Amino acid sequence: MTEYILAKHISKYLDKEVTLKGWVYNIRKSGKIWFLIFRDGTEFIQCVVLKNDVSEEIFELKNTLTQESSLAITGIVQEAPRQEAGYELLVKNIEVIHVAEEYPIALKDHGVDFLMDNRHLWLRSRLPYAIMKIRAEVEKACRDFFDERDFTLVDSPMFTPNAAEGSTTLFETKYFDRKAYLTQSGQLYSEAAIMALNRTYCFGPCFRAEKSKTRRHLTEFWMIEPEMAFFDIFDDMDLAEEFVEYLVQRALKNCRRELEILDRDITKLEAIQRPFPRITYDEALELLTKKGFDIKFGDDLGAPHETAIAEEYNKPVMIWRWPTESKAFYMKRDPEDEKYVLGVDMIAPEGHGEIIGGSQREEDINVLLERIEKEDLPKEDFEWFLDIRRYGSVPHSGFGLGLERTVGWICGTHHVRECIPWPRTMGRLKP
Amino acid sequence: MTEYILAKHISKYLDKEVTLKGWVYNIRKSGKIWFLIFRDGTEFIQCVVLKNDVSEEIFELKNTLTQESSLAITGIVQEAPRQEAGYELLVKNIEVIHVAEEYPIALKDHGVDFLMDNRHLWLRSRLPYAIMKIRAEVEKACRDFFDERDFTLVDSPMFTPNAAEGSTTLFETKYFDRKAYLTQSGQLYSEAAIMALNRTYCFGPCFRAEKSKTRRHLTEFWMIEPEMAFFDIFDDMDLAEEFVEYLVQRALKNCRRELEILDRDITKLEAIQRPFPRITYDEALELLTKKGFDIKFGDDLGAPHETAIAEEYNKPVMIWRWPTESKAFYMKRDPEDEKYVLGVDMIAPEGHGEIIGGSQREEDINVLLERIEKEDLPKEDFEWFLDIRRYGSVPHSGFGLGLERTVGWICGTHHVRECIPWPRTMGRLKP
Repeated sequence: MTEYILAKHISKYLDKEVTLKGWVYNIRKSGKIWFLIFRDGTEFIQCVVLKNDVSEEIFELKNTLTQESSLAITGIVQEAPRQEAGYELLVKNIEVIHVAEEYPIALKDHGVDFLMDNRHLWLRSRLPYAIMKIRAEVEKACRDFFDERDFTLVDSPMFTPNAAEGSTTLFETKYFDRKAYLTQSGQLYSEAAIMALNRTYCFGPCFRAEKSKTRRHLTEFWMIEPEMAFFDIFDDMDLAEEFVEYLVQRALKNCRRELEILDRDITKLEAIQRPFPRITYDEALELLTKKGFDIKFGDDLGAPHETAIAEEYNKPVMIWRWPTESKAFYMKRDPEDEKYVLGVDMIAPEGHGEIIGGSQREEDINVLLERIEKEDLPKEDFEWFLDIRRYGSVPHSGFGLGLERTVGWICGTHHVRECIPWPRTMGRLKP
Repeated sequence: MTEYILAKHISKYLDKEVTLKGWVYNIRKSGKIWFLIFRDGTEFIQCVVLKNDVSEEIFELKNTLTQESSLAITGIVQEAPRQEAGYELLVKNIEVIHVAEEYPIALKDHGVDFLMDNRHLWLRSRLPYAIMKIRAEVEKACRDFFDERDFTLVDSPMFTPNAAEGSTTLFETKYFDRKAYLTQSGQLYSEAAIMALNRTYCFGPCFRAEKSKTRRHLTEFWMIEPEMAFFDIFDDMDLAEEFVEYLVQRALKNCRRELEILDRDITKLEAIQRPFPRITYDEALELLTKKGFDIKFGDDLGAPHETAIAEEYNKPVMIWRWPTESKAFYMKRDPEDEKYVLGVDMIAPEGHGEIIGGSQREEDINVLLERIEKEDLPKEDFEWFLDIRRYGSVPHSGFGLGLERTVGWICGTHHVRECIPWPRTMGRLKP
């Protein structure tokens, strides 16, 4: 029997007979020859069917095979430099596994709502396929980066016991006779974990009941959050910068084909090399004012601000040293001026918005207690978190990187919903 | 300034002066010398403080340093073959970062409830530390195994739109003006994804509102689920076997120290080599009857049955070819006898229970429709899933491996709650 191979390995089988198993992507007919663009989920391959090479029954399949029908196809591997894959198959035999009903997603334009309703089928198309490949590579790169740097993966919990930060964007769940809330970030848990394991990361789903219908928001998204004992804000920014450079360079190295399918401007990604520009919040304010924005000290930056700042650079830009009142209670105050905290946001180029938020954490229990009181947070819910400062408190820092926004930037997609296999938004919970 | 290093790299600095940063694990005093067992989350190191080598102030720290106080400690790296780490530090200087309050977890026995209430601190102790290290290695091994074998990671969603399988163990969430349910398995989504990407896996949290308080159940656990186009049940079992062997051998190779900390019987793990025994459900029934169990065809196997079967082997055992009525609607019926489906469970040795459940999936839409109708499942909720069989249906298979049970088996722990950083059970939602 001929060897069954995955199409991605075709180059190793030049002049050999192999069997591929997969689906009809497209068919072009031309008299005594027809071309089957075939996909098996690992590669797209042109298969050439010559009238003289196959039985009549097989040659006539050109009239009955529908798009997405499944096949086992046997033939000889040939070089084909003009083909995307570099190789094609000279067909000897076709075994039809299943003739597909009329496929709802023809090779033409559809509205995005229709495509999203058919996400389970749309994933088979070239663009979603390429984005999913890049997403998987970026996820692997995320893990490799930290695994290679003495970090230990420590998964944070999805169920959390209380709405401690009092947010309106929490999802609530019935938990037997109680209520539980779905996690928005693993940070507080990671702060405990690094006291046991020094450098940790968590990487999993996070949930935000965001009512905003922007192109940057999902209710369910993946976030990777490294946390490091004995790191200050500068160590934190150095690591964030190295990390983002690494992700982009890995995608460039291992996903060149997929970036080409997406028509991504590669030169823009090649420019993503350290160092990245770093500006303070005050400098950002100055820049925005110069650009005509009406913004004052203490205001948070919105998407239009981020885009306006990003326009100034061809690399991600880090904005740090934020007004204390604009940021979360756990950020460390700048010892030089308590008006500021040692937080940092990283804004991606080309309007893709904030991809990283991080900070040095407050390690002084008294400052933390003061902040908790001032913001009227329920102290009893934070007792375990305060324990981290009671028993061998140390300086520490961390950040979180949003996976879908990062993938969206690398792929150059307009909306983050295309960067997760099964997007969930305020309006979408299916399929 | 002396170089700051992580303790795990100490062997590279023999006879050099280095600085370590971390915490006091224990102190032993003896006249003109005292020993500080120091941990930095990457290694435990004995630090030797000689009266003649340090200032009086530093020597007297032996009386004021409490357990878990944080320090920066500078000294000369020396060989110490009798020490676990193989090296020790001859102390030159100690900088106290924070003197810990009296630590609630002394180095003595506590009840597990107390320890779990203090999970955020307990993680610093040697046994939980070792288990977390092994868990991280097993997770990495899971991903490496599939990444090296042409699989693409495709994350399944956490929010699902309906209680399609009608289970009583679903967690329900308010989703804006609707309801959503937390995923119990990514399988149905993976079945769609392989039609786009051929071989995929998802690896993330799953949720079951189990009311059972057994040592094998969590409400939130991690599961890795590979799914493969063109795999039949035998390919599926071959892969499951290769996978489990790989996980155990990786832990043996990279976590020897941690397994020793846990006092794990290494020889039991070394025996985990392919092939694993495979018995049919009927053979399992026969064995159980011989052992005195009152069990009849169609009954599911419970924990006592699993343990009784596992006792017969020193390797995981695969039980396959199950009664149709005992298994889910999507399993493929055995073409030789419709009384059976092509499902498989893998039972770990030593009473750790089922670690894998898998099957060949039904690819015929008519059989699937018949099953959906017979089990009175809401057909409309499965329309997208049925689409997989409408458009190029192919034979396919997959399985899911429960991470915590697998880690529990490898570590030899009694209860799965020790195998996840922040366990969630019916009775526990904190910290």
